[in-house]
Amino acid sequence: MVYMRYDIAIVGSGPAGLSAAINAKIRNKNIIVFGTENLSNKLVKAPSIDNYLGFHDISGDDLKDKFKEHIKNMDIEISQKKINNIYAMGDYFALMSGDEMYESTTVILATGVEYGKPIKGEEEFLGKGVGYCATCDAPLYRDKKVAVIGYNKESEEEANFLNEIASKTYFIPMYKNEKLMRSSHDLDSSIEVINDRPLQIHGENLVNKVAFKGKEIDVDGVFVIKDSASPKSLVPGIETDGPHIKVDLNMKTSIDGCFAAGDCVGKPYAYIKSAGQGYIAALNAVSYLDKLKIEAKKNQ
Amino acid sequence: MVYMRYDIAIVGSGPAGLSAAINAKIRNKNIIVFGTENLSNKLVKAPSIDNYLGFHDISGDDLKDKFKEHIKNMDIEISQKKINNIYAMGDYFALMSGDEMYESTTVILATGVEYGKPIKGEEEFLGKGVGYCATCDAPLYRDKKVAVIGYNKESEEEANFLNEIASKTYFIPMYKNEKLMRSSHDLDSSIEVINDRPLQIHGENLVNKVAFKGKEIDVDGVFVIKDSASPKSLVPGIETDGPHIKVDLNMKTSIDGCFAAGDCVGKPYAYIKSAGQGYIAALNAVSYLDKLKIEAKKNQ
Repeated sequence: MVYMRYDIAIVGSGPAGLSAAINAKIRNKNIIVFGTENLSNKLVKAPSIDNYLGFHDISGDDLKDKFKEHIKNMDIEISQKKINNIYAMGDYFALMSGDEMYESTTVILATGVEYGKPIKGEEEFLGKGVGYCATCDAPLYRDKKVAVIGYNKESEEEANFLNEIASKTYFIPMYKNEKLMRSSHDLDSSIEVINDRPLQIHGENLVNKVAFKGKEIDVDGVFVIKDSASPKSLVPGIETDGPHIKVDLNMKTSIDGCFAAGDCVGKPYAYIKSAGQGYIAALNAVSYLDKLKIEAKKNQ
Repeated sequence: MVYMRYDIAIVGSGPAGLSAAINAKIRNKNIIVFGTENLSNKLVKAPSIDNYLGFHDISGDDLKDKFKEHIKNMDIEISQKKINNIYAMGDYFALMSGDEMYESTTVILATGVEYGKPIKGEEEFLGKGVGYCATCDAPLYRDKKVAVIGYNKESEEEANFLNEIASKTYFIPMYKNEKLMRSSHDLDSSIEVINDRPLQIHGENLVNKVAFKGKEIDVDGVFVIKDSASPKSLVPGIETDGPHIKVDLNMKTSIDGCFAAGDCVGKPYAYIKSAGQGYIAALNAVSYLDKLKIEAKKNQ
Protein backbone atom coordinates (compact mmCIF):
# COMPACT_ATOMS: atom_id res chain seq x y z
CA MET A 1 0.00 0.00 0.00
CA VAL A 2 1.35 3.44 -0.93
CA TYR A 3 0.47 6.32 1.31
CA MET A 4 0.10 9.91 0.24
CA ARG A 5 2.85 11.95 1.82
CA TYR A 6 1.61 15.29 3.14
CA ASP A 7 3.98 18.23 3.61
CA ILE A 8 2.49 19.33 6.92
CA ALA A 9 0.10 17.44 9.21
CA ILE A 10 -1.57 19.66 11.77
CA VAL A 11 -3.00 17.94 14.83
CA GLY A 12 -5.63 20.11 16.46
CA SER A 13 -8.23 22.54 15.12
CA GLY A 14 -8.19 25.30 17.74
CA PRO A 15 -6.78 28.76 17.02
CA ALA A 16 -3.16 27.48 16.90
CA GLY A 17 -3.93 24.66 14.47
CA LEU A 18 -6.09 26.80 12.20
CA SER A 19 -3.65 29.70 12.12
CA ALA A 20 -0.94 27.18 11.18
CA ALA A 21 -3.23 25.73 8.51
CA ILE A 22 -4.07 29.03 6.78
CA ASN A 23 -0.43 30.09 6.74
CA ALA A 24 0.79 26.73 5.43
CA LYS A 25 -1.91 26.83 2.74
CA ILE A 26 -0.90 30.37 1.72
CA ARG A 27 2.59 28.95 1.25
CA ASN A 28 1.17 26.29 -1.08
CA LYS A 29 1.91 23.32 1.11
CA ASN A 30 -0.01 20.09 0.93
CA ILE A 31 -1.62 19.93 4.35
CA ILE A 32 -3.97 17.81 6.41
CA VAL A 33 -5.67 19.07 9.56
CA PHE A 34 -6.98 16.69 12.21
CA GLY A 35 -9.62 18.12 14.50
CA THR A 36 -13.26 18.22 15.40
CA GLU A 37 -16.45 19.57 13.88
CA ASN A 38 -16.75 22.35 16.44
CA LEU A 39 -13.00 23.13 16.21
CA SER A 40 -12.31 23.41 19.94
CA ASN A 41 -14.45 22.36 22.88
CA LYS A 42 -12.79 24.99 25.02
CA LEU A 43 -13.50 27.74 22.51
CA VAL A 44 -17.18 26.99 21.91
CA LYS A 45 -17.86 26.95 25.64
CA ALA A 46 -16.41 30.44 26.22
CA PRO A 47 -19.33 32.77 27.04
CA SER A 48 -17.57 35.98 25.98
CA ILE A 49 -14.14 36.76 24.59
CA ASP A 50 -12.80 40.32 24.83
CA ASN A 51 -9.14 40.01 24.08
CA TYR A 52 -8.91 38.59 20.56
CA LEU A 53 -8.00 41.81 18.78
CA GLY A 54 -10.56 42.61 16.11
CA PHE A 55 -13.53 41.01 17.85
CA HIS A 56 -14.93 42.65 20.96
CA ASP A 57 -17.33 40.83 23.27
CA ILE A 58 -17.81 37.85 20.97
CA SER A 59 -19.04 34.47 22.18
CA GLY A 60 -16.74 31.51 21.71
CA ASP A 61 -19.34 29.94 19.49
CA ASP A 62 -19.49 33.00 17.23
CA LEU A 63 -15.70 33.22 17.08
CA LYS A 64 -15.69 29.54 16.10
CA ASP A 65 -18.03 30.44 13.21
CA LYS A 66 -15.65 33.21 12.10
CA PHE A 67 -12.79 30.73 12.12
CA LYS A 68 -14.89 28.19 10.19
CA GLU A 69 -15.75 30.76 7.56
CA HIS A 70 -12.09 31.70 7.22
CA ILE A 71 -10.89 28.15 6.59
CA LYS A 72 -13.88 27.37 4.36
CA ASN A 73 -12.99 30.37 2.17
CA MET A 74 -9.48 28.95 1.86
CA ASP A 75 -10.70 25.43 1.06
CA ILE A 76 -9.22 23.94 4.20
CA GLU A 77 -11.03 20.88 5.43
CA ILE A 78 -10.79 19.24 8.80
CA SER A 79 -10.41 15.50 9.08
CA GLN A 80 -12.27 14.23 12.11
CA LYS A 81 -10.00 11.23 12.51
CA LYS A 82 -8.52 11.13 15.97
CA ILE A 83 -4.74 10.78 15.97
CA ASN A 84 -3.61 8.43 18.74
CA ASN A 85 0.09 8.20 18.09
CA ILE A 86 2.71 9.97 16.06
CA TYR A 87 6.00 8.23 15.29
CA ALA A 88 9.12 9.94 13.95
CA MET A 89 10.33 7.65 11.13
CA GLY A 90 13.46 9.61 10.17
CA ASP A 91 12.47 11.50 7.05
CA TYR A 92 8.75 11.52 7.77
CA PHE A 93 6.16 11.04 10.48
CA ALA A 94 3.58 8.27 10.74
CA LEU A 95 0.32 9.45 12.27
CA MET A 96 -1.85 6.62 13.55
CA SER A 97 -5.60 6.80 13.84
CA GLY A 98 -6.81 3.42 15.05
CA ASP A 99 -5.62 1.08 12.25
CA GLU A 100 -5.31 3.87 9.70
CA MET A 101 -2.03 5.63 9.01
CA TYR A 102 -1.18 9.02 7.56
CA GLU A 103 2.29 10.10 6.43
CA SER A 104 3.65 13.61 6.59
CA THR A 105 7.09 15.18 6.25
CA THR A 106 6.44 17.59 9.11
CA VAL A 107 3.98 17.76 11.99
CA ILE A 108 2.54 20.70 13.89
CA LEU A 109 1.09 19.76 17.26
CA ALA A 110 -1.73 22.06 18.35
CA THR A 111 -3.48 19.70 20.71
CA GLY A 112 -4.35 22.05 23.56
CA VAL A 113 -4.05 20.97 27.15
CA GLU A 114 -6.11 18.87 29.42
CA TYR A 115 -7.69 20.77 32.23
CA GLY A 116 -8.08 18.98 35.53
CA LYS A 117 -5.84 16.41 37.09
CA PRO A 118 -5.65 12.79 36.08
CA ILE A 119 -7.66 10.40 38.22
CA LYS A 120 -5.71 8.70 41.01
CA GLY A 121 -4.19 5.55 39.51
CA GLU A 122 -4.67 6.71 35.91
CA GLU A 123 -1.01 7.38 35.23
CA GLU A 124 0.20 4.47 37.37
CA PHE A 125 -1.81 1.93 35.36
CA LEU A 126 -1.35 3.53 31.92
CA GLY A 127 -0.61 0.60 29.60
CA LYS A 128 -1.54 -1.85 32.38
CA GLY A 129 -5.26 -1.72 31.80
CA VAL A 130 -5.64 2.02 31.40
CA GLY A 131 -5.75 3.29 27.82
CA TYR A 132 -6.70 6.41 25.91
CA CYS A 133 -7.78 4.83 22.62
CA ALA A 134 -10.61 2.34 22.42
CA THR A 135 -10.12 1.62 18.72
CA CYS A 136 -6.47 0.76 19.37
CA ASP A 137 -6.83 -1.50 22.39
CA ALA A 138 -10.36 -2.87 22.16
CA PRO A 139 -9.28 -6.34 20.91
CA LEU A 140 -7.55 -6.91 24.26
CA TYR A 141 -10.89 -6.72 26.05
CA ARG A 142 -12.96 -9.25 24.17
CA ASP A 143 -15.47 -10.74 26.62
CA LYS A 144 -14.03 -8.69 29.46
CA LYS A 145 -15.35 -5.87 31.61
CA VAL A 146 -14.42 -2.30 30.72
CA ALA A 147 -15.19 1.16 32.02
CA VAL A 148 -15.13 4.27 29.84
CA ILE A 149 -14.47 7.51 31.69
CA GLY A 150 -15.67 10.04 29.14
CA TYR A 151 -14.82 13.73 29.12
CA ASN A 152 -16.65 14.57 25.90
CA LYS A 153 -19.56 13.61 23.71
CA GLU A 154 -17.32 11.59 21.38
CA SER A 155 -16.50 9.21 24.21
CA GLU A 156 -20.02 7.79 23.85
CA GLU A 157 -19.05 6.41 20.45
CA GLU A 158 -15.99 4.78 21.91
CA ALA A 159 -18.15 3.20 24.61
CA ASN A 160 -20.52 1.83 21.98
CA PHE A 161 -17.61 0.41 20.03
CA LEU A 162 -16.17 -1.29 23.10
CA ASN A 163 -19.58 -2.61 24.02
CA GLU A 164 -19.63 -4.70 20.83
CA ILE A 165 -16.59 -6.61 22.07
CA ALA A 166 -16.64 -6.47 25.86
CA SER A 167 -18.87 -8.59 28.07
CA LYS A 168 -19.84 -5.56 30.13
CA THR A 169 -19.35 -1.83 29.55
CA TYR A 170 -19.66 0.92 32.14
CA PHE A 171 -19.85 4.54 31.08
CA ILE A 172 -18.80 7.25 33.52
CA PRO A 173 -19.57 10.73 32.16
CA MET A 174 -17.25 13.52 33.31
CA TYR A 175 -18.79 16.35 31.29
CA LYS A 176 -19.06 19.63 33.06
CA ASN A 177 -22.44 21.26 33.48
CA GLU A 178 -24.20 18.37 31.83
CA LYS A 179 -26.00 15.41 33.30
CA LEU A 180 -25.89 12.38 31.11
CA MET A 181 -29.54 11.44 31.09
CA ARG A 182 -30.68 8.32 29.30
CA SER A 183 -32.74 10.51 26.98
CA SER A 184 -29.89 12.81 25.96
CA HIS A 185 -27.12 10.44 25.00
CA ASP A 186 -26.37 8.02 22.23
CA LEU A 187 -25.26 5.05 24.26
CA ASP A 188 -26.33 1.47 23.58
CA SER A 189 -28.99 0.50 26.07
CA SER A 190 -26.88 -2.38 27.42
CA ILE A 191 -24.21 0.05 28.66
CA GLU A 192 -24.45 0.84 32.36
CA VAL A 193 -24.11 4.56 33.10
CA ILE A 194 -22.62 5.56 36.43
CA ASN A 195 -23.38 9.17 37.33
CA ASP A 196 -20.70 9.46 39.97
CA ARG A 197 -17.13 10.75 40.15
CA PRO A 198 -14.50 8.03 40.06
CA LEU A 199 -12.08 8.48 42.97
CA GLN A 200 -9.40 5.97 42.09
CA ILE A 201 -8.40 3.31 39.61
CA HIS A 202 -7.16 0.27 41.56
CA GLY A 203 -5.17 -2.76 40.56
CA GLU A 204 -2.27 -5.03 41.38
CA ASN A 205 -0.20 -5.70 38.28
CA LEU A 206 -3.17 -4.83 36.13
CA VAL A 207 -6.25 -2.73 36.66
CA ASN A 208 -9.04 -4.53 38.54
CA LYS A 209 -11.34 -1.89 40.06
CA VAL A 210 -12.72 1.63 39.81
CA ALA A 211 -13.66 3.09 43.17
CA PHE A 212 -16.38 5.66 43.83
CA LYS A 213 -17.57 7.07 47.14
CA GLY A 214 -18.87 3.96 48.94
CA LYS A 215 -18.97 1.87 45.76
CA GLU A 216 -16.61 -0.14 43.55
CA ILE A 217 -16.91 -1.82 40.17
CA ASP A 218 -14.79 -4.73 38.97
CA VAL A 219 -13.17 -4.10 35.59
CA ASP A 220 -10.37 -5.48 33.41
CA GLY A 221 -9.74 -2.23 31.59
CA VAL A 222 -10.40 1.48 31.86
CA PHE A 223 -10.50 3.88 28.92
CA VAL A 224 -10.09 7.54 29.70
CA ILE A 225 -11.41 9.51 26.72
CA LYS A 226 -10.27 13.13 26.76
CA ASP A 227 -10.08 15.83 24.13
CA SER A 228 -6.36 15.48 23.91
CA ALA A 229 -3.85 12.89 24.96
CA SER A 230 -0.77 13.84 26.94
CA PRO A 231 2.09 14.88 24.65
CA LYS A 232 4.27 11.97 25.74
CA SER A 233 1.63 9.38 24.96
CA LEU A 234 0.87 11.07 21.63
CA VAL A 235 4.46 11.52 20.44
CA PRO A 236 6.78 9.01 22.09
CA GLY A 237 10.15 10.57 22.88
CA ILE A 238 9.11 14.21 22.73
CA GLU A 239 10.58 16.44 25.43
CA THR A 240 8.07 17.99 27.79
CA ASP A 241 8.01 20.36 30.71
CA GLY A 242 5.25 19.17 33.00
CA PRO A 243 2.08 18.96 30.91
CA HIS A 244 3.58 21.12 28.13
CA ILE A 245 5.67 20.41 25.06
CA LYS A 246 9.11 22.03 25.10
CA VAL A 247 9.64 24.40 22.17
CA ASP A 248 12.16 27.05 21.19
CA LEU A 249 11.31 30.55 19.90
CA ASN A 250 10.64 29.05 16.46
CA MET A 251 8.11 26.60 17.92
CA LYS A 252 10.45 23.67 17.21
CA THR A 253 10.09 20.68 19.51
CA SER A 254 12.90 18.32 20.46
CA ILE A 255 12.14 16.22 17.37
CA ASP A 256 13.35 17.47 13.96
CA GLY A 257 10.45 18.39 11.70
CA CYS A 258 7.98 18.42 14.59
CA PHE A 259 6.64 21.80 15.71
CA ALA A 260 4.07 22.77 18.33
CA ALA A 261 1.90 25.80 19.09
CA GLY A 262 -0.86 26.98 21.37
CA ASP A 263 -1.88 25.88 24.84
CA CYS A 264 0.08 22.62 24.49
CA VAL A 265 3.37 24.56 24.65
CA GLY A 266 2.62 26.42 27.85
CA LYS A 267 0.86 29.11 29.79
CA PRO A 268 -0.55 31.70 29.60
CA TYR A 269 -3.43 30.25 27.61
CA ALA A 270 -5.04 32.68 25.15
CA TYR A 271 -6.58 32.38 21.71
CA ILE A 272 -4.65 35.30 20.23
CA LYS A 273 -1.36 33.94 21.53
CA SER A 274 -2.15 30.50 20.10
CA ALA A 275 -2.99 32.00 16.71
CA GLY A 276 0.30 33.92 16.70
CA GLN A 277 2.26 30.80 17.56
CA GLY A 278 0.43 28.78 14.91
CA TYR A 279 1.68 31.26 12.34
CA ILE A 280 5.27 30.91 13.59
CA ALA A 281 5.07 27.11 13.61
CA ALA A 282 3.76 27.07 10.02
CA LEU A 283 6.49 29.39 8.79
CA ASN A 284 9.20 27.27 10.37
CA ALA A 285 7.70 24.06 9.05
CA VAL A 286 7.78 25.64 5.59
CA SER A 287 11.46 26.65 6.06
CA TYR A 288 12.24 23.11 7.15
CA LEU A 289 10.57 21.69 4.02
CA ASP A 290 12.43 24.18 1.82
CA LYS A 291 15.75 23.15 3.36
CA LEU A 292 14.99 19.48 2.74
CA LYS A 293 14.30 20.28 -0.91
CA ILE A 294 17.61 22.11 -1.31
CA GLU A 295 19.49 19.24 0.32
CA ALA A 296 17.73 16.71 -1.88
CA LYS A 297 18.81 18.66 -4.98
CA LYS A 298 22.42 18.82 -3.77
CA ASN A 299 22.48 15.06 -3.29
CA GLN A 300 21.15 14.33 -6.77
CA MET B 1 4.67 70.05 38.70
CA VAL B 2 3.24 66.66 39.61
CA TYR B 3 2.83 64.15 36.84
CA MET B 4 0.22 61.44 36.70
CA ARG B 5 1.92 58.06 36.99
CA TYR B 6 0.48 55.51 34.56
CA ASP B 7 0.77 51.77 35.22
CA ILE B 8 1.57 50.89 31.61
CA ALA B 9 2.58 53.18 28.75
CA ILE B 10 2.23 51.54 25.35
CA VAL B 11 4.22 53.07 22.52
CA GLY B 12 2.72 52.12 19.17
CA SER B 13 -0.83 51.52 17.97
CA GLY B 14 -0.39 48.61 15.58
CA PRO B 15 -1.66 45.10 16.37
CA ALA B 16 0.99 44.53 19.08
CA GLY B 17 0.26 47.79 20.88
CA LEU B 18 -3.51 47.41 20.69
CA SER B 19 -3.49 43.78 21.80
CA ALA B 20 -1.34 44.86 24.75
CA ALA B 21 -3.75 47.72 25.46
CA ILE B 22 -6.93 45.61 25.53
CA ASN B 23 -5.33 43.00 27.77
CA ALA B 24 -3.90 45.60 30.16
CA LYS B 25 -7.30 47.30 30.31
CA ILE B 26 -9.04 43.99 31.04
CA ARG B 27 -6.63 43.67 33.96
CA ASN B 28 -7.76 47.09 35.22
CA LYS B 29 -4.47 48.86 34.70
CA ASN B 30 -4.21 52.58 34.18
CA ILE B 31 -2.81 52.80 30.66
CA ILE B 32 -1.83 55.32 28.02
CA VAL B 33 -1.36 54.39 24.37
CA PHE B 34 0.75 56.53 22.04
CA GLY B 35 0.03 56.07 18.36
CA THR B 36 -1.58 57.53 15.30
CA GLU B 37 -5.08 58.19 14.04
CA ASN B 38 -4.87 55.42 11.44
CA LEU B 39 -3.20 53.03 13.94
CA SER B 40 -0.48 51.71 11.63
CA ASN B 41 0.70 53.06 8.29
CA LYS B 42 1.84 49.59 7.32
CA LEU B 43 -1.54 48.05 8.14
CA VAL B 44 -3.74 50.55 6.29
CA LYS B 45 -1.66 50.18 3.15
CA ALA B 46 -2.07 46.38 3.00
CA PRO B 47 -4.34 45.60 0.04
CA SER B 48 -5.52 42.20 1.34
CA ILE B 49 -4.78 40.20 4.46
CA ASP B 50 -5.49 36.47 4.46
CA ASN B 51 -3.70 35.18 7.49
CA TYR B 52 -5.21 36.97 10.47
CA LEU B 53 -7.37 34.10 11.74
CA GLY B 54 -11.01 35.14 11.83
CA PHE B 55 -10.86 37.58 8.92
CA HIS B 56 -10.39 36.20 5.42
CA ASP B 57 -9.43 38.46 2.51
CA ILE B 58 -9.83 41.69 4.44
CA SER B 59 -8.17 44.94 3.42
CA GLY B 60 -5.73 46.49 5.85
CA ASP B 61 -7.99 49.51 6.05
CA ASP B 62 -11.00 47.39 7.01
CA LEU B 63 -8.99 45.46 9.58
CA LYS B 64 -7.88 48.79 11.01
CA ASP B 65 -11.58 49.70 11.38
CA LYS B 66 -12.23 46.42 13.24
CA PHE B 67 -9.35 47.19 15.59
CA LYS B 68 -10.65 50.75 16.08
CA GLU B 69 -14.11 49.46 16.93
CA HIS B 70 -12.63 46.99 19.41
CA ILE B 71 -10.66 49.62 21.35
CA LYS B 72 -13.52 52.12 21.15
CA ASN B 73 -15.84 49.56 22.75
CA MET B 74 -13.33 49.20 25.55
CA ASP B 75 -12.91 52.97 26.02
CA ILE B 76 -9.29 52.93 24.99
CA GLU B 77 -8.08 56.18 23.48
CA ILE B 78 -4.94 56.80 21.53
CA SER B 79 -2.78 59.80 22.29
CA GLN B 80 -1.25 61.17 19.10
CA LYS B 81 1.76 62.61 20.88
CA LYS B 82 4.96 61.30 19.37
CA ILE B 83 7.34 59.84 21.91
CA ASN B 84 10.93 60.77 21.10
CA ASN B 85 12.80 59.38 24.06
CA ILE B 86 12.16 57.03 26.93
CA TYR B 87 14.39 57.12 29.99
CA ALA B 88 14.52 54.47 32.71
CA MET B 89 14.45 56.43 35.97
CA GLY B 90 14.73 53.50 38.37
CA ASP B 91 11.20 52.92 39.62
CA TYR B 92 9.47 54.50 36.63
CA PHE B 93 9.99 55.60 33.05
CA ALA B 94 9.96 59.14 31.69
CA LEU B 95 8.50 59.34 28.19
CA MET B 96 9.40 62.55 26.39
CA SER B 97 7.31 64.09 23.66
CA GLY B 98 9.00 67.31 22.66
CA ASP B 99 8.99 69.30 25.89
CA GLU B 100 6.15 67.30 27.43
CA MET B 101 6.77 64.38 29.75
CA TYR B 102 4.72 61.34 30.71
CA GLU B 103 5.49 59.01 33.61
CA SER B 104 4.73 55.33 33.73
CA THR B 105 5.77 52.43 35.94
CA THR B 106 6.15 50.09 32.97
CA VAL B 107 6.53 50.52 29.21
CA ILE B 108 5.55 48.29 26.31
CA LEU B 109 7.37 49.12 23.09
CA ALA B 110 5.33 48.25 20.01
CA THR B 111 6.97 50.63 17.59
CA GLY B 112 7.23 48.46 14.50
CA VAL B 113 10.28 48.53 12.28
CA GLU B 114 11.53 50.84 9.65
CA TYR B 115 11.51 49.38 6.19
CA GLY B 116 14.24 50.46 3.86
CA LYS B 117 17.83 51.21 4.58
CA PRO B 118 19.08 54.41 6.14
CA ILE B 119 20.47 56.97 3.70
CA LYS B 120 24.24 56.89 3.24
CA GLY B 121 25.73 59.11 5.93
CA GLU B 122 22.56 59.12 8.05
CA GLU B 123 23.95 56.89 10.78
CA GLU B 124 27.46 58.33 10.53
CA PHE B 125 26.26 61.87 11.21
CA LEU B 126 23.53 61.01 13.74
CA GLY B 127 23.94 63.60 16.50
CA LYS B 128 26.38 65.55 14.32
CA GLY B 129 23.77 67.39 12.35
CA VAL B 130 21.42 64.48 11.65
CA GLY B 131 18.41 64.21 13.99
CA TYR B 132 15.09 62.41 14.19
CA CYS B 133 13.13 64.94 16.24
CA ALA B 134 12.61 68.49 15.05
CA THR B 135 10.86 69.62 18.25
CA CYS B 136 13.85 68.42 20.29
CA ASP B 137 16.69 69.88 18.26
CA ALA B 138 15.16 72.85 16.42
CA PRO B 139 16.73 75.51 18.71
CA LEU B 140 20.17 74.44 17.47
CA TYR B 141 19.26 75.54 13.95
CA ARG B 142 18.10 79.13 14.51
CA ASP B 143 18.94 81.09 11.35
CA LYS B 144 20.58 78.06 9.81
CA LYS B 145 19.79 75.89 6.80
CA VAL B 146 17.99 72.57 7.37
CA ALA B 147 16.66 69.75 5.23
CA VAL B 148 13.75 67.55 6.28
CA ILE B 149 13.72 64.09 4.72
CA GLY B 150 10.13 63.09 5.30
CA TYR B 151 8.77 59.52 5.17
CA ASN B 152 5.21 60.39 6.19
CA LYS B 153 2.58 63.09 6.11
CA GLU B 154 3.40 64.17 9.67
CA SER B 155 6.87 65.17 8.59
CA GLU B 156 5.30 68.18 6.86
CA GLU B 157 4.36 69.59 10.27
CA GLU B 158 7.91 69.17 11.48
CA ALA B 159 9.17 71.01 8.41
CA ASN B 160 6.75 73.88 9.09
CA PHE B 161 7.91 74.03 12.70
CA LEU B 162 11.58 74.15 11.68
CA ASN B 163 10.83 76.77 9.06
CA GLU B 164 9.78 79.22 11.78
CA ILE B 165 13.31 79.06 13.20
CA ALA B 166 15.64 78.21 10.35
CA SER B 167 16.78 80.64 7.68
CA LYS B 168 16.05 78.12 4.93
CA THR B 169 14.12 74.85 4.98
CA TYR B 170 14.24 72.15 2.32
CA PHE B 171 11.64 69.37 2.28
CA ILE B 172 12.48 66.08 0.61
CA PRO B 173 9.42 63.78 0.46
CA MET B 174 10.14 60.03 0.56
CA TYR B 175 6.55 58.81 0.47
CA LYS B 176 5.90 55.81 -1.70
CA ASN B 177 3.37 56.02 -4.52
CA GLU B 178 2.74 59.67 -3.85
CA LYS B 179 4.09 62.75 -5.50
CA LEU B 180 4.23 65.69 -3.20
CA MET B 181 2.56 68.32 -5.36
CA ARG B 182 2.29 71.88 -4.11
CA SER B 183 -1.48 71.51 -4.16
CA SER B 184 -1.59 68.37 -2.01
CA HIS B 185 0.60 69.19 0.94
CA ASP B 186 0.43 71.46 3.93
CA LEU B 187 3.87 73.02 3.74
CA ASP B 188 4.57 76.69 4.23
CA SER B 189 5.10 78.34 0.86
CA SER B 190 8.63 79.44 1.80
CA ILE B 191 9.79 75.83 2.14
CA GLU B 192 11.62 74.51 -0.92
CA VAL B 193 10.44 71.05 -1.97
CA ILE B 194 12.97 68.80 -3.69
CA ASN B 195 11.31 65.92 -5.53
CA ASP B 196 14.43 63.82 -5.84
CA ARG B 197 15.99 60.93 -3.90
CA PRO B 198 18.82 61.97 -1.61
CA LEU B 199 21.87 59.78 -2.29
CA GLN B 200 24.13 60.78 0.58
CA ILE B 201 24.44 63.06 3.57
CA HIS B 202 27.92 64.61 3.50
CA GLY B 203 29.97 66.41 6.11
CA GLU B 204 33.30 66.72 7.82
CA ASN B 205 32.88 66.93 11.57
CA LEU B 206 29.31 68.10 11.10
CA VAL B 207 26.81 67.72 8.27
CA ASN B 208 27.27 70.23 5.46
CA LYS B 209 25.59 68.81 2.34
CA VAL B 210 22.86 66.55 0.98
CA ALA B 211 23.74 65.06 -2.40
CA PHE B 212 21.31 64.09 -5.16
CA LYS B 213 22.03 62.82 -8.65
CA GLY B 214 23.96 65.72 -10.20
CA LYS B 215 22.92 68.18 -7.52
CA GLU B 216 23.86 69.18 -3.98
CA ILE B 217 22.37 71.44 -1.36
CA ASP B 218 24.27 73.12 1.46
CA VAL B 219 22.73 72.48 4.89
CA ASP B 220 23.67 72.75 8.58
CA GLY B 221 21.25 70.06 9.72
CA VAL B 222 19.20 67.17 8.36
CA PHE B 223 16.07 65.79 10.00
CA VAL B 224 14.99 62.32 8.99
CA ILE B 225 11.33 61.94 9.95
CA LYS B 226 10.21 58.30 9.96
CA ASP B 227 7.25 56.47 11.47
CA SER B 228 9.44 55.02 14.20
CA ALA B 229 12.80 55.83 15.59
CA SER B 230 15.46 53.18 16.01
CA PRO B 231 15.13 51.38 19.36
CA LYS B 232 18.50 52.65 20.57
CA SER B 233 17.67 56.27 19.89
CA LEU B 234 14.21 55.85 21.47
CA VAL B 235 15.33 54.00 24.60
CA PRO B 236 18.97 54.73 25.44
CA GLY B 237 20.72 51.65 26.77
CA ILE B 238 18.29 49.04 25.49
CA GLU B 239 19.88 45.89 24.07
CA THR B 240 19.21 45.26 20.40
CA ASP B 241 19.98 42.67 17.78
CA GLY B 242 20.44 44.55 14.51
CA PRO B 243 17.31 46.64 13.99
CA HIS B 244 15.35 44.62 16.59
CA ILE B 245 14.87 44.87 20.34
CA LYS B 246 16.17 41.85 22.27
CA VAL B 247 13.42 40.15 24.29
CA ASP B 248 13.01 36.87 26.13
CA LEU B 249 10.03 34.51 25.85
CA ASN B 250 8.05 36.80 28.19
CA MET B 251 8.69 39.81 25.93
CA LYS B 252 10.97 41.37 28.55
CA THR B 253 13.69 43.65 27.23
CA SER B 254 17.10 44.17 28.85
CA ILE B 255 15.58 46.96 30.99
CA ASP B 256 13.46 46.00 34.03
CA GLY B 257 9.84 47.01 33.58
CA CYS B 258 10.28 47.56 29.84
CA PHE B 259 8.63 45.05 27.49
CA ALA B 260 8.40 44.91 23.70
CA ALA B 261 6.19 43.18 21.14
CA GLY B 262 5.52 43.01 17.43
CA ASP B 263 7.72 43.75 14.45
CA CYS B 264 10.19 45.70 16.63
CA VAL B 265 11.31 42.46 18.32
CA GLY B 266 12.09 40.57 15.13
CA LYS B 267 11.08 38.69 12.03
CA PRO B 268 8.89 37.17 10.74
CA TYR B 269 6.57 40.16 10.57
CA ALA B 270 2.87 39.32 10.84
CA TYR B 271 -0.17 40.97 12.37
CA ILE B 272 -1.38 37.85 14.16
CA LYS B 273 2.04 37.22 15.65
CA SER B 274 2.27 40.82 16.83
CA ALA B 275 -1.17 40.60 18.45
CA GLY B 276 -0.15 37.40 20.26
CA GLN B 277 3.04 39.01 21.52
CA GLY B 278 1.17 42.13 22.64
CA TYR B 279 -0.94 39.89 24.85
CA ILE B 280 2.15 38.27 26.38
CA ALA B 281 3.83 41.64 26.95
CA ALA B 282 0.72 43.00 28.70
CA LEU B 283 0.43 39.96 30.96
CA ASN B 284 4.05 40.20 32.00
CA ALA B 285 3.81 43.94 32.60
CA VAL B 286 0.84 43.21 34.86
CA SER B 287 2.83 40.54 36.74
CA TYR B 288 5.67 43.00 37.15
CA LEU B 289 3.29 45.62 38.59
CA ASP B 290 1.77 43.06 40.96
CA LYS B 291 5.21 42.08 42.22
CA LEU B 292 6.10 45.73 42.87
CA LYS B 293 2.91 46.09 44.92
CA ILE B 294 3.72 43.05 47.04
CA GLU B 295 7.26 44.31 47.65
CA ALA B 296 5.97 47.77 48.57
CA LYS B 297 3.64 46.20 51.15
CA LYS B 298 6.49 44.15 52.65
CA ASN B 299 8.62 47.24 53.06
CA GLN B 300 5.92 49.21 54.84
